[in-house]
Amino acid sequence: MSPVSLLLSAKAKARFDAFSDGVFAIVITLLVLELHVPAGRQHLASTLGEEWPRYLGYFVSFAFIGGIWVAHSTISHFIEAVDATLMRLNLVLLLFVSLLPFTTGILATHLFASVLPIDRVTEPLPGFGPERLAVVVFGANLTLAALMTFLVVRHVDKTDELAPDDRVEEELRGFTRGRGTAVVLQALATVVGVFLPVVAVVVYLGLAIFFFVDPLWIERVRRRVRNQST
Amino acid sequence: MSPVSLLLSAKAKARFDAFSDGVFAIVITLLVLELHVPAGRQHLASTLGEEWPRYLGYFVSFAFIGGIWVAHSTISHFIEAVDATLMRLNLVLLLFVSLLPFTTGILATHLFASVLPIDRVTEPLPGFGPERLAVVVFGANLTLAALMTFLVVRHVDKTDELAPDDRVEEELRGFTRGRGTAVVLQALATVVGVFLPVVAVVVYLGLAIFFFVDPLWIERVRRRVRNQST
Amino acid sequence: MSPVSLLLSAKAKARFDAFSDGVFAIVITLLVLELHVPAGRQHLASTLGEEWPRYLGYFVSFAFIGGIWVAHSTISHFIEAVDATLMRLNLVLLLFVSLLPFTTGILATHLFASVLPIDRVTEPLPGFGPERLAVVVFGANLTLAALMTFLVVRHVDKTDELAPDDRVEEELRGFTRGRGTAVVLQALATVVGVFLPVVAVVVYLGLAIFFFVDPLWIERVRRRVRNQST
Amino acid sequence: MSPVSLLLSAKAKARFDAFSDGVFAIVITLLVLELHVPAGRQHLASTLGEEWPRYLGYFVSFAFIGGIWVAHSTISHFIEAVDATLMRLNLVLLLFVSLLPFTTGILATHLFASVLPIDRVTEPLPGFGPERLAVVVFGANLTLAALMTFLVVRHVDKTDELAPDDRVEEELRGFTRGRGTAVVLQALATVVGVFLPVVAVVVYLGLAIFFFVDPLWIERVRRRVRNQST
Repeated sequence: MSPVSLLLSAKAKARFDAFSDGVFAIVITLLVLELHVPAGRQHLASTLGEEWPRYLGYFVSFAFIGGIWVAHSTISHFIEAVDATLMRLNLVLLLFVSLLPFTTGILATHLFASVLPIDRVTEPLPGFGPERLAVVVFGANLTLAALMTFLVVRHVDKTDELAPDDRVEEELRGFTRGRGTAVVLQALATVVGVFLPVVAVVVYLGLAIFFFVDPLWIERVRRRVRNQST
Repeated sequence: MSPVSLLLSAKAKARFDAFSDGVFAIVITLLVLELHVPAGRQHLASTLGEEWPRYLGYFVSFAFIGGIWVAHSTISHFIEAVDATLMRLNLVLLLFVSLLPFTTGILATHLFASVLPIDRVTEPLPGFGPERLAVVVFGANLTLAALMTFLVVRHVDKTDELAPDDRVEEELRGFTRGRGTAVVLQALATVVGVFLPVVAVVVYLGLAIFFFVDPLWIERVRRRVRNQST
Repeated sequence: MSPVSLLLSAKAKARFDAFSDGVFAIVITLLVLELHVPAGRQHLASTLGEEWPRYLGYFVSFAFIGGIWVAHSTISHFIEAVDATLMRLNLVLLLFVSLLPFTTGILATHLFASVLPIDRVTEPLPGFGPERLAVVVFGANLTLAALMTFLVVRHVDKTDELAPDDRVEEELRGFTRGRGTAVVLQALATVVGVFLPVVAVVVYLGLAIFFFVDPLWIERVRRRVRNQST
Repeated sequence: MSPVSLLLSAKAKARFDAFSDGVFAIVITLLVLELHVPAGRQHLASTLGEEWPRYLGYFVSFAFIGGIWVAHSTISHFIEAVDATLMRLNLVLLLFVSLLPFTTGILATHLFASVLPIDRVTEPLPGFGPERLAVVVFGANLTLAALMTFLVVRHVDKTDELAPDDRVEEELRGFTRGRGTAVVLQALATVVGVFLPVVAVVVYLGLAIFFFVDPLWIERVRRRVRNQST
């Protein structure tokens, strides 16, 4: 294999996109398997009511993966080719993304544990109970996925051969900074999870929605500015 | 990220298509996981006979998702580019589509409950029994997915920068109206589900098949008209 | 939606391909979920040995879906555009393809039942035992999938607007005949399943492999002929 | 079907890529289903600690599939068309790739068995215990997948009509040799598994990471050489 000939290859980029889209699409859809259908003998309404931590986890992960996917297709928009490093950084990103149904399941099961009737709790909650561990494991997964997104973007930013022209350079730099901020905020929220597990999950949701909605707001502002200047 | 440069991007549209196709393909295939294979010790013929609510749910969801996918690729046919709003509206649409295996499972399990031998029913059926709740939850999911499809189509219709030329405008308007009607009919059928659960499921199936087959009928008529005018 | 404008649309064809490839890829991969990993307490070697009907079912379905996918991409090779009828015929084909993990599971579980130690069989085997039913349900699914493939090919063959030029007409006719033969043979094998369940499964496997390998053999002959005439 | 007209078909190649990317993406994501979320009543921290053989198996398979996918898109980069043989060799490769979640599950469950508290082991470990069998089955699967990758590459190398020009010939030959070496090393590691199961798994991981990272190292060297010569 000659990575040199891979460089600047549009064909390799098409497969880079297709494979990544595949993984994102599957992971975002597999999340639904963590939502358990109550069995025929259980009381449907109360069971659905009790399962809210699962739905919360589902929405956090869906919004987070949606946000990462939007970022990923933005990167894809900036580049013309992929190199061997980019392909591998991307695979590590996909590793952490594809772990999310697992860590979301841990969060949903053990955040749920804390609101269970007392008789179903079989262990005391010492210094670092299962809730905290679940919230921190989930937060660490989100942080690592955000970190890999940042590293992918930064690699594109630093490698001149990948980007088609110089005009995008400034945009790319701003985008890289934005992804860096996302890593720091997510890491801080994970640290909060050690002390206040439930609060941290709400912060995770807030961050996921913020990074999902954020560009929309920018777009509206820019469009208004453009319209005024015309 | 500069949403402005995303606008009118054919590259971003390719990924928009690929990601959506991926999610639709996975969801329509995951539905099969809700069809349980009877274990070796059960009587196969009678078990398969008892499981008809599962097969009914499967066909409703398959036809519904098939119809949404056809609508989605029709939208894709009308546009040349995607903007940040379209990507997000689409992700919310995909959220409700990817919830369908879960709500189909709820429908299948609890519509089934009503035809179970009496001794397996462990709860009385008060005012709002599990059947009704299951049918309404499933109907609400279908309604929300139909609503998001409508909002996606309407956004494309309203945003001049996305559509390639003016000739499609009239078609696009008619298509938007059609999707709006679908939302209203699906919402009405869901209301019927509160009072007549089983009837509502049959209406869901009818609507899914109607919106799936509908364009076929139009095509035949148009083709005949075209042939006569030649 | 104007099906007339959909006609001859290369864009719609790209999504037709992508969605179909997605469903085929997912179904062929989901089959693996029917192969149960023996739990830690079971004796691994003997369990793996007992599970042979599952592996047989897996290979039949894998070879069958592989063959259908090759046929599907051959169709795709012949056409330049899709119309509304083709999209719907294709969705019905995908319906029967995506049911295969379910019917393969039924086959694997109940063909397995017949080789279980006697004490685990809890029902007498009357005229139409579970084995036969399982083999016939699976065969019917294969037959319906083969039938839809035939109908898709025939629609392409009959609709002049879909194929790019006249030169392929003869090839297309031969291909349609071949797919018709596949339907008849698969239907006959399913009838055999009523009387000789185990034999029928072997015939299913033979047919799947034959239709998978068949074009290879033709290619070798043609290549040799071409080389001799040069 | 005329394989001759399939030959040199860019359209068929697009579907070859899309279908393969789909299968790779799904398999690499399905692996996560083998990671069990501990139930609410279990002690989370200790359960996560005990489950390390599952995580080890997950990483081996993820790195291995990632490496095969990189190799696959490199092949795709070399060719302009697909023939009937290539499509079938590729489907057999995908067969062994899609079996990996199953054999990874066997490895994870039975490598785990050996570190279970004694009272949970219900069988004596004779000459060829479940651990060894699990490690060998998993290694055989990796070897067969590596072998099919080699056969796919060699077929491309030997078939002049598939590669676009002569310049890539030397690179292609080197790539084929590299994939051959991978098969031999993986087969040797599997033999080691008969005697030293746990060591073999570590070697599997090492090989997977080596073939994943290897081209990166080459790229750095070449880039440095290129920069010095400028």
